[in-house]
Amino acid sequence: MSTNTEPARRTGGRSAVVLSAIKTAVEELVAERGSERVTIPMVAERAGVNPTSVYRRWGDASTMINDIATYRLDPGRPLPKGDDLRTLLTEWADEIIRHYSDPVHAAILRGGAASAGQSQSDCLRNRRAEAGMLVQQAAPVPGITVERVIDHIVAPIVYRVIFIPDSLDETLAPRLVAELFD
Amino acid sequence: MSTNTEPARRTGGRSAVVLSAIKTAVEELVAERGSERVTIPMVAERAGVNPTSVYRRWGDASTMINDIATYRLDPGRPLPKGDDLRTLLTEWADEIIRHYSDPVHAAILRGGAASAGQSQSDCLRNRRAEAGMLVQQAAPVPGITVERVIDHIVAPIVYRVIFIPDSLDETLAPRLVAELFD
Repeated sequence: MSTNTEPARRTGGRSAVVLSAIKTAVEELVAERGSERVTIPMVAERAGVNPTSVYRRWGDASTMINDIATYRLDPGRPLPKGDDLRTLLTEWADEIIRHYSDPVHAAILRGGAASAGQSQSDCLRNRRAEAGMLVQQAAPVPGITVERVIDHIVAPIVYRVIFIPDSLDETLAPRLVAELFD
Repeated sequence: MSTNTEPARRTGGRSAVVLSAIKTAVEELVAERGSERVTIPMVAERAGVNPTSVYRRWGDASTMINDIATYRLDPGRPLPKGDDLRTLLTEWADEIIRHYSDPVHAAILRGGAASAGQSQSDCLRNRRAEAGMLVQQAAPVPGITVERVIDHIVAPIVYRVIFIPDSLDETLAPRLVAELFD
């Protein structure tokens, strides 16, 4: 049993309204300018709140953007089920493509790319782990390794999200999977 | 004959020394912080020059970084010659990998990724044009199109440059080409 006697934090009312305004402001600004160019004063102004209260909650802009977590593909979401690797990878790739077809999600990925390279990004680690789970779960297919899934399915999707977002459509996942398998 | 009577701009002496100091400062700072975080005052301080003279020459940091042109893979450089597409693509891919194995070049690419998406990047346009020239120059190979070269050779290289730079080595080009062809 918890011995914590602090009062529960209010989650409704005024603070929910403020959080919702901040979230909308962040989404709009990230889509308009790219996540690297969004600052806390900009967000506060757009949301009509005091910058101090935004700084108090998040400290800096990148923590704020990362914390508003619906931008990221949830690593805890259920993965496709089954034992046909081709079907599993097609469904999984298609979900990633649909996620990044949202301009806000694409802008966040571009921001992540800018600050990548020093350490492995969460995005990369999560997709690699997912690819590993799918390859393990399915009936083995000779020559289809996690490394090849990264190079020939994840990499072309991420490259297109970053550089040619207009080219993302529902034909991409089956085409990339076919090119890997055939 | 030119009727321009302006005196020729001095290219040696003091101004060459200043330009060289600025160039070194830009390279170091881009490698240390990523191109998106490099500002003109930072460069001026590191180079030991007056920020005003840097502003006068380039106006803003991204123009300065782009103008110090050795960072980019020269689109006018000679491409590999021959008619065996597999050999051509392997040599071309290997050159791209060697270029981006330089941490400064990789940092510039990450900066370009951050600001991509609104318009097609030069990097993308140049690599696509080169892939087109190689595919046209070589004896045709069924199923090997520019689109597939982008998805299965360029995209995995760029993805690795951005997210897993330590994975770039001399085995990558032949492996990606083999996976595309076999």
